[in-house]
Amino acid sequence: MAVLRTLIGEELRATRLSQERTLREVSSAARVSLGYLSEVERGQKEASSELLASICRALGVRLSDVLREVSESLSVLEAQPVPVAELHAPSRAVADVVAAA
Amino acid sequence: MAVLRTLIGEELRATRLSQERTLREVSSAARVSLGYLSEVERGQKEASSELLASICRALGVRLSDVLREVSESLSVLEAQPVPVAELHAPSRAVADVVAAA
Repeated sequence: MAVLRTLIGEELRATRLSQERTLREVSSAARVSLGYLSEVERGQKEASSELLASICRALGVRLSDVLREVSESLSVLEAQPVPVAELHAPSRAVADVVAAA
Repeated sequence: MAVLRTLIGEELRATRLSQERTLREVSSAARVSLGYLSEVERGQKEASSELLASICRALGVRLSDVLREVSESLSVLEAQPVPVAELHAPSRAVADVVAAA
């Protein structure tokens, strides 16, 4: 489901938009390419620890605050019913472990 | 400073050790290589969203809980005085922005 990088991207994007700043401004301040920042915001690319710190610095926010927001959003999603597709994956994993034992 | 992946690694490692499980057990359950899990735990490798979710599942913990712990550890570090080496980097960045203006 890879929801983590999606949530991080959404949080960074919401922060940038709340400051009425463009991708160009923030990517320049963070010293990352515009395309990279755009992909991170859309959850299409994992931001490394260094670049995440750099983007947060450019936005003037604390990474710990971003993570707390993401953690809260994630906990809501985790509390929701598991989709059928997700239910199957662990079952297969268990079956494989049993088979390998 | 790349402290984020270090903190995530420490949290995962502390969780695994509190369960008295080996790298081999957890890496097998998470379907990642032992070497990869070891590197993630030592903060030497960024875990992708998918693999972080998989490791948390193997440990039986919620990713949101891991992130909350990491966020709290990080907020303590962020509140500490900035090392001299860190103070120089932003100054150079500002100088470059001024020079480019």
